[in-house]
Amino acid sequence: MTTQSVWVGGIWREADASATFVAKNPATGAELADVYPISKWSDCDAALDAAVEVARGLRKLSGEQLAVFLEAYASEIEAQADAIIVMANAETGLPVSPRLQNVELPRTTTQLRQAAAAAREGSWQQVVIDTKNNIRSHFAPMGPVVVFGPNNFPFAFNGISGGDFAAAIATGCPVIAKAHPLHPGTSRLLALCAERALQTSGLPAATVQMLYNIANENGLRLVSDPRVAASSFTGSRGAGMSLKSAAERAGKLMYLEMSSLNPVVLLPGVVTERGDALAGELADSCLAAAGQFCTSPNLVLTVAGDATELFALRLADTLSMRPSGTILSEQGLKGLHESVKWLVDAGATVVTGAEPIEGDGWRYKNTLLRVSAKDFLFAKEKLQREAFGNATLLVTADDVAELTEVLDSLEGNLTGSIYSSANGTDDAIYAAVAEALRPRVGRLLNDKMPTGVALSPAMNHGGPFPSTSHPGFTAVGIPRSLLRFGALHCYDSVREDRLPAALRDKSPLPTMWRTIDGASIQG
Amino acid sequence: MTTQSVWVGGIWREADASATFVAKNPATGAELADVYPISKWSDCDAALDAAVEVARGLRKLSGEQLAVFLEAYASEIEAQADAIIVMANAETGLPVSPRLQNVELPRTTTQLRQAAAAAREGSWQQVVIDTKNNIRSHFAPMGPVVVFGPNNFPFAFNGISGGDFAAAIATGCPVIAKAHPLHPGTSRLLALCAERALQTSGLPAATVQMLYNIANENGLRLVSDPRVAASSFTGSRGAGMSLKSAAERAGKLMYLEMSSLNPVVLLPGVVTERGDALAGELADSCLAAAGQFCTSPNLVLTVAGDATELFALRLADTLSMRPSGTILSEQGLKGLHESVKWLVDAGATVVTGAEPIEGDGWRYKNTLLRVSAKDFLFAKEKLQREAFGNATLLVTADDVAELTEVLDSLEGNLTGSIYSSANGTDDAIYAAVAEALRPRVGRLLNDKMPTGVALSPAMNHGGPFPSTSHPGFTAVGIPRSLLRFGALHCYDSVREDRLPAALRDKSPLPTMWRTIDGASIQG
Repeated sequence: MTTQSVWVGGIWREADASATFVAKNPATGAELADVYPISKWSDCDAALDAAVEVARGLRKLSGEQLAVFLEAYASEIEAQADAIIVMANAETGLPVSPRLQNVELPRTTTQLRQAAAAAREGSWQQVVIDTKNNIRSHFAPMGPVVVFGPNNFPFAFNGISGGDFAAAIATGCPVIAKAHPLHPGTSRLLALCAERALQTSGLPAATVQMLYNIANENGLRLVSDPRVAASSFTGSRGAGMSLKSAAERAGKLMYLEMSSLNPVVLLPGVVTERGDALAGELADSCLAAAGQFCTSPNLVLTVAGDATELFALRLADTLSMRPSGTILSEQGLKGLHESVKWLVDAGATVVTGAEPIEGDGWRYKNTLLRVSAKDFLFAKEKLQREAFGNATLLVTADDVAELTEVLDSLEGNLTGSIYSSANGTDDAIYAAVAEALRPRVGRLLNDKMPTGVALSPAMNHGGPFPSTSHPGFTAVGIPRSLLRFGALHCYDSVREDRLPAALRDKSPLPTMWRTIDGASIQG
Repeated sequence: MTTQSVWVGGIWREADASATFVAKNPATGAELADVYPISKWSDCDAALDAAVEVARGLRKLSGEQLAVFLEAYASEIEAQADAIIVMANAETGLPVSPRLQNVELPRTTTQLRQAAAAAREGSWQQVVIDTKNNIRSHFAPMGPVVVFGPNNFPFAFNGISGGDFAAAIATGCPVIAKAHPLHPGTSRLLALCAERALQTSGLPAATVQMLYNIANENGLRLVSDPRVAASSFTGSRGAGMSLKSAAERAGKLMYLEMSSLNPVVLLPGVVTERGDALAGELADSCLAAAGQFCTSPNLVLTVAGDATELFALRLADTLSMRPSGTILSEQGLKGLHESVKWLVDAGATVVTGAEPIEGDGWRYKNTLLRVSAKDFLFAKEKLQREAFGNATLLVTADDVAELTEVLDSLEGNLTGSIYSSANGTDDAIYAAVAEALRPRVGRLLNDKMPTGVALSPAMNHGGPFPSTSHPGFTAVGIPRSLLRFGALHCYDSVREDRLPAALRDKSPLPTMWRTIDGASIQG
């Protein structure tokens, strides 16, 4: 079988490969047919040269031209949806329906179209005009962006099609996508869609490039290369911290989304009021995609009492009775089991699960661990290790004061949920709990599990370190997510006909909002 | 003589000092009377504990309350202006008038009042409300901020009173100021003003704290401490890179402003048109504050020709005839001379100056160096060393193509200026030159020297690395400069009465702009 080509400099060509790899079907453990290359540095080098060259041209394009490409790409994906979904199902074990077909693929094309709308509309640039001093500024494309997609979303966070991709392209930055090696075939089919969309929309062929896999040292070299403006990475904390260190030492931007426990606080009143229902709701959230969401609840915080004990029993029952989903890789299964053992070594006890399931493919028993708040506080660093998969740690505090002490000890997270009773019995304690949780999370929820991440302009899929590398940016939520790839460009006394269209006295875009002498003005 | 107290935890108290230091008058070289402590880690540690505690309270304050403090502080500075200016003149050698009295002090109080206005008005928070999904987000204070001020602006960039200070306080973040050891007395007088303003405005006493000096290793420890949210530093590239590395390894934000050559491009037509006038204008800019501005033009780019030779002669004459200003410190004078020698070693020739001036205090001959574009390109890394002070490098290219090649080789800068003729003779080449310069600078100017940095909402005092650490942020320009200290806080389905006032259906602030369902709405 021949090795698949890489997409560099606008053409599909043989990789300069150090080795090859194949993907496996996580549901069966069986190897899939196609062979993919692990590129040497020379492939990265060629992609970087092409990206620098194409970045010059992209800067001159209008938002409209970028939008046409993004929309054409969304349509191409829809036209090829069946083949893409079959491939993704084989490579990830994620169910065709509803997950891949009805949820993730539409989410992905919606993101591309939202990014197109943002590029076309223009407000994302945050134009500020000071007419008195004739000083004008806006956000403009930064330059080549490298996107490392994660293993858990083959479409919606894929480096070649996901949220970071869409945001970077919408700003006018070329993208070098590093496909995740667990779903190379899916990434290839998506890249072919992107290629057709580039052709029909007339954008430069090297606007998007893709490599399947590179050695770790070349990843570090890539993000710190002078030709790169910024990189984004979604994945493990270890890999993320290595990339961050390499990039930042070289003065390069590195946006990370690394790990998050997504604490869910259940106040005493709501547990009494509807503990059984909560157990079901929590189990749904914990088991969605076998717990392999960035926002999966890994930590549940309660206050001791009879209702909490009943809730814990019901949660354990529910988890043990539900089927276990597929873990995305053998390595992932191993990592999950290691993390569970780590948590047990650190003081947690096993309520249910905590072992791999024998048989074909990779599955793990739905797992509930438990620890007292006292023991949590005693080993608070160790017990904040993320177990990526269908495992959750239930913490029980003696009282609300101890609960807030646990919250005060938490590292940064993407989300934090607080459930409180409808009848007002939790209202008196809500404020203290929220005050402790608020600075530690990017998104605070009420009476809602964190696993839904709406494609809303108000969304924040970001948070304090180590959940991400900068709490002022979000990876989901257009147009705000575009700002990660924008450089602030100011024009001081520049002659009118030399200004970018967006900064001229007369707006080129009828719906773009601009701040002119302190007032927000449309058109 | 007793050693001055540090301001920690709301009180002035004896430092836990490892040593003491005194300031010197740069105009005379004479030691000044007061003795200041170099704090041990225990002082940093106490300040951090106090900052964490006070950050909880500050988060609950309204913008109005923060504004009242900032305005009271500005008024206190004005009331004490005479004493502050006398002290700053003695510590920095900067002229009382116009610099300290008529320019920098009013600039500083204007910044504080602009920050107050931004805090009160609220639009800086960038509220986005999605009513359909009931998701709402805005920027909120990040937590304790450490500000390291530079040597060259004792008021306007001082950690205790400058732009970073004003921005951090306006967001609701407490500030630990590290005074610059070249002007401790000025910093002390400003801190006393801040103290009175805290008292009259009723803000917590530890909202602002100040240490005079700390060992380098404690600086690295401070910026990487878990209790800190972000730090900002304006100063040398070496110190900045050390702080960046320490902070970012710990997941902490570090905003840097490090070095910038601020290229000024003089196109052939304008040199022919008004070369003599340009020589005067450029000399004014290069010699302002003896070249010790972040935006001082260190690099002048021209195209070869008779007019350029006449311009170069006139520039050299002008520089050699003008008086030399005072360099801020003995160390600064040494650094300037070393950098000039470095540039000469790298291929530049001395046209005029290039040596220290004998006598009391620290002064350097106004210096013009020169190099061909070919030689510049041959040693492009070495020749981009910033000589902080009254020295400038003139580069002459054979033609416009070579000129743009030089621009393509430049590292990131705060500013870039392009002068072109009024009669249109440069118009044909402007685009290519601007295209090369634009991605390498934060602010692009036409027919204007870079040293003026207007306090405008459209200003960008930032730029690509190594001029700063992130090209999406600015240190000057309110309200945008506040965003460096804002964490994005999202509320997903949070009950109305639990939302921050700014995110409720009814706006609490009549003039705040909010984006509601895609439209920008005031009030």
